[in-house]
Amino acid sequence: MSVLSLLFGRRLANDEEAGRKIGWFEAVPAMGLDGLGSSSYGPEAALTVLAPLGAAGLALIGPLMGVIVALLAILYLSYRQTVKAYPVNGGAYTVAKENLGENAGLLAATALMLDYGLNVAVGISAGVGALTSSVPALQPYTLVLCLGVLVLVTVANLRGTGEAGLLFSLPTYLFLACFLGLIAVGLWRTLAGHGHPHAVVAPPHLAQAGQAAAGWWLVLRAFAAGCTAMTGVEAVSNGVGAFKPPVVPQARRTLSIIVGALALLLLGLAALTQVYHVGAMDQTKAGYQSVASQIAAAVAGRGPVYYVSMASLLAVLSLSANTSFVGFPRLCRMVAQDGFLPRPFATPDRRLVFSVGVLFLTVVAGALLVGFGGVTDRLIPLFAVGAFLTFTLSQAGMVEHWRKQEGRHVLPLTINALGAVATGAALAVIVVAKFAEGAWLTVLAIPLTLLLLKRVRRYYTGLDARMALTTPLSIEETEPPTVLVAYEAYNRMTARALRYALTLSPDVVAVHLTHLAGPEAEEHERELRATFDADVAQPAHAAGQKSPELKLIPAPYRTMHTPLLDYIRQLDADTPGRSVTVLIPERIEVGWWKALMHNNRAQRLRNLLVRDGDARLVVSIAPWKLEA
Amino acid sequence: MSVLSLLFGRRLANDEEAGRKIGWFEAVPAMGLDGLGSSSYGPEAALTVLAPLGAAGLALIGPLMGVIVALLAILYLSYRQTVKAYPVNGGAYTVAKENLGENAGLLAATALMLDYGLNVAVGISAGVGALTSSVPALQPYTLVLCLGVLVLVTVANLRGTGEAGLLFSLPTYLFLACFLGLIAVGLWRTLAGHGHPHAVVAPPHLAQAGQAAAGWWLVLRAFAAGCTAMTGVEAVSNGVGAFKPPVVPQARRTLSIIVGALALLLLGLAALTQVYHVGAMDQTKAGYQSVASQIAAAVAGRGPVYYVSMASLLAVLSLSANTSFVGFPRLCRMVAQDGFLPRPFATPDRRLVFSVGVLFLTVVAGALLVGFGGVTDRLIPLFAVGAFLTFTLSQAGMVEHWRKQEGRHVLPLTINALGAVATGAALAVIVVAKFAEGAWLTVLAIPLTLLLLKRVRRYYTGLDARMALTTPLSIEETEPPTVLVAYEAYNRMTARALRYALTLSPDVVAVHLTHLAGPEAEEHERELRATFDADVAQPAHAAGQKSPELKLIPAPYRTMHTPLLDYIRQLDADTPGRSVTVLIPERIEVGWWKALMHNNRAQRLRNLLVRDGDARLVVSIAPWKLEA
Repeated sequence: MSVLSLLFGRRLANDEEAGRKIGWFEAVPAMGLDGLGSSSYGPEAALTVLAPLGAAGLALIGPLMGVIVALLAILYLSYRQTVKAYPVNGGAYTVAKENLGENAGLLAATALMLDYGLNVAVGISAGVGALTSSVPALQPYTLVLCLGVLVLVTVANLRGTGEAGLLFSLPTYLFLACFLGLIAVGLWRTLAGHGHPHAVVAPPHLAQAGQAAAGWWLVLRAFAAGCTAMTGVEAVSNGVGAFKPPVVPQARRTLSIIVGALALLLLGLAALTQVYHVGAMDQTKAGYQSVASQIAAAVAGRGPVYYVSMASLLAVLSLSANTSFVGFPRLCRMVAQDGFLPRPFATPDRRLVFSVGVLFLTVVAGALLVGFGGVTDRLIPLFAVGAFLTFTLSQAGMVEHWRKQEGRHVLPLTINALGAVATGAALAVIVVAKFAEGAWLTVLAIPLTLLLLKRVRRYYTGLDARMALTTPLSIEETEPPTVLVAYEAYNRMTARALRYALTLSPDVVAVHLTHLAGPEAEEHERELRATFDADVAQPAHAAGQKSPELKLIPAPYRTMHTPLLDYIRQLDADTPGRSVTVLIPERIEVGWWKALMHNNRAQRLRNLLVRDGDARLVVSIAPWKLEA
Repeated sequence: MSVLSLLFGRRLANDEEAGRKIGWFEAVPAMGLDGLGSSSYGPEAALTVLAPLGAAGLALIGPLMGVIVALLAILYLSYRQTVKAYPVNGGAYTVAKENLGENAGLLAATALMLDYGLNVAVGISAGVGALTSSVPALQPYTLVLCLGVLVLVTVANLRGTGEAGLLFSLPTYLFLACFLGLIAVGLWRTLAGHGHPHAVVAPPHLAQAGQAAAGWWLVLRAFAAGCTAMTGVEAVSNGVGAFKPPVVPQARRTLSIIVGALALLLLGLAALTQVYHVGAMDQTKAGYQSVASQIAAAVAGRGPVYYVSMASLLAVLSLSANTSFVGFPRLCRMVAQDGFLPRPFATPDRRLVFSVGVLFLTVVAGALLVGFGGVTDRLIPLFAVGAFLTFTLSQAGMVEHWRKQEGRHVLPLTINALGAVATGAALAVIVVAKFAEGAWLTVLAIPLTLLLLKRVRRYYTGLDARMALTTPLSIEETEPPTVLVAYEAYNRMTARALRYALTLSPDVVAVHLTHLAGPEAEEHERELRATFDADVAQPAHAAGQKSPELKLIPAPYRTMHTPLLDYIRQLDADTPGRSVTVLIPERIEVGWWKALMHNNRAQRLRNLLVRDGDARLVVSIAPWKLEA
């Protein structure tokens, strides 16, 4: 236990959960990391698609980001409504389930779960991408670094630091300060330089255009890729329950800051890529520079500002994975409480963390990182499908919500309907544009996960039906059971067990298995019987009790439970209606090495009898402590 | 279980052990592999030491082998006595323990155990050396090949094929035929060629002499190295119990054949190295050829005869490891039965194999192979110390045996005394000559192991003293215990447990832990109480029984056992002298994935209560089978 405590901290009481509510200042890092972090890989993903156009592609990034920011604005207005309507929990699962029914809720949950998994993988791989841009020597270790960060984030979340603390606020606000500052300086220089600022460190030359003009297909694909910049916006609605009162204003302010900052970042970065001629590079090649790194170097040179900016970006991206680690276990818990996921997902551990969800997320994200080599570019096509499906279902649920409300709610209904249509359209574009590149995997995984969830629920429904008992307790048995005491030799441990057995029932049988020790072992049956007679049977008789019986049963195959179960079957046949209890004295010693000193037959017998005994067999353990 | 059966075979009954006795024809492979296999690495080890002398060293190998064969002859005569005097088990442990006392016995056992471990490592590495001599491309994979052979031998021994079957006879007799044939042909050609036969494939040129003349130190070291050729001779005396009657003649004939063949091999190989100018090569270098391989190629060329010979040698050496796998677990079992090793060493598994010993030997040999890179040369210096210590103790024990017998036994006493002195002297030479090269490790390991064995015995002695009870059973308790039933909700499972509890004792308390599910879980205490009252309390009352009580206990830290143990402590204080039993209903389902669907609280509660409960707490499991 002390190792656990060292690694994960002491056990927490239930009431230590209270008083951990947060205001907008803590909420921006806690809920915004995912959204803000997206600003670094969203534009880069779009630029990667546009790369074949060479310099001509850069002209497109501005309009593309304009469209995306417009979409973001609609989504912002929509989620302001959700936050107000669901001030306890406005997650897509709840909203869709309550308004559109179970299936829609599960669909939203599935989409969200997949997106959480992808967000961890993308956040970490993009963070490590930022690191390897700054320290190119680390580039060959991309995957190892990714997995290392994953382990760190997992351990932190198993401790349950959750979303609190300076660890999250400092890099978030530092990141905002650095990049908004870089954008401001960059734009200022652009104005001063009449649209042609001088780059302190010039970005690598753009590759020659492989393609003359932008086809509509390329533009669609670039838009779909750029949409990843919007993932994470739903975090505030999922986390409304975490706010201090007044909840709704706090949540709305948080949402405004996050979305506002994200919009500024997207537009600012888009503008700077154009004026500094920054293109996307291949993360798998040596010398890779992320777009954010190229811009930072162009504006500030490779000095302290650059390194601080990149460090804050690395931190934000790695911690943006953390948003998933906070959200995923909570979502799984809600789904598990409704019976669609195994119950352990709903069980808080010693630190009040839903650790099964945490570990499950680690495994999923680890598999994604390994499967895709920790390369952001390869993961991006799978991403965003889940997010936009979630957006659409959540907004559609809100439309239904307003329709069901009494009174007229034209404006909110219109806003949410607009949100649903806009995100739905974007979803269609994303699925079509990215299908061949990897979105098919997400499209395939969603229904399969959904089926699995429903299968889990069916299991629990069946189980509950078989467990339920609607009639009152019938008390027909009154006769005590026959008690069999596992008896190796007469000693303190077996004497205690026999004494206890005699208090339960007049019918006590000491069962000794012979031939357990193999063909060449010597048996002392006569001695055994004599001792039993002198030390057990006669004293019992003298005390006026029915004496326990000694029964020797051969165990020619050296298994304990099969001959014992045969004997019990015979007892059942002889005295039907009488239940049987096996009492096993078990030596309890402290010290791991002591388990190596014994055959541990008691434990094995106990487990096998529980597993293979019939429904009326009760297995009792009489622990015997050597210290006592 | 079916995977186990597939890999290791079905479970065997005790009486299937009988009827597995063997005659001399099977015994030669079973007990001789170790001894015969030594003939390939013994002379090579001596030649390795003599290598600095260049061609001059070859002249010394003949006299050295002559001395060793003379020693072998003395040992042969000695062991003939042992076999007759101890026709059931003449192992060094028994002989030394019975005649020289416990410490001498343990010393012999320790020496033998270490030698068994080394024999596995040396046998396998020499076998793989023979393989890589024939197929040089495999040379870089030496260690992997060694570990692969080790795993195969382990699995075969866990199946318990033991020493029987064609698997062992065929390669042994093939090996004897091949190498005795090669020696005969080689010697014939030598005579025909007037001492200078023509080599079919000439052995690599001997290196230039780095040293002009042989010092006495070099000769001693060469002798010590060559003594490894004698390891394994004790196998027959250890295995006398395995012979068909008449035991003594069978055992003696087996011993004669093994020692005779070994002597012929040693002398023949020594002669051929001289006439063909075969020297030892470095196993770690590419192009390595073992001495046996060079001789076989010189006599027969690299044709079919060569490959058949080398294949039989590889088989004999790998299987010679098997001799240890048969002997080591049996030795450990005897030592464990005397309380000097943990008891699991004395427990036959489902195949009647002492699998703990087998696995322990695998780990030891694996560690040796890894630690020494699978190179025979590096292992050899550690070897032979244990064997010669065993020889000496066994012979010394025999001397004492004859002294204690009534009547005069001058001749046998003299023979054994001669054996003890000769092997003792050889032991002294070996320890001194090999000390710096690695024998110090063995010299260090023996007393440490001995101390460990005595420590184990002390633990058991202490345990037995604390368990022993010399007074008859005192029957002072007659009042049944208070029975606490772990109660989550009213259902078939808990109803059954309550019904059973009421047959044991009038005092039944259903204990429900609240707040187990974390801070945000809803509790339905009122509903719980109402159901209990209607479905349990009232029917019990109606049946004229004292009604079970419902007790709600908060578990703010979400651990089940601590609040329960607190409650039990309080009960103990309220009703002293009354014992408490906790009855835990446990759902038993078939299917590994079902364990993932539940929190498995019953199992955890059971284990924690057994571990942490006080000495008078009994823990009962009422299994509830979903199939039932």
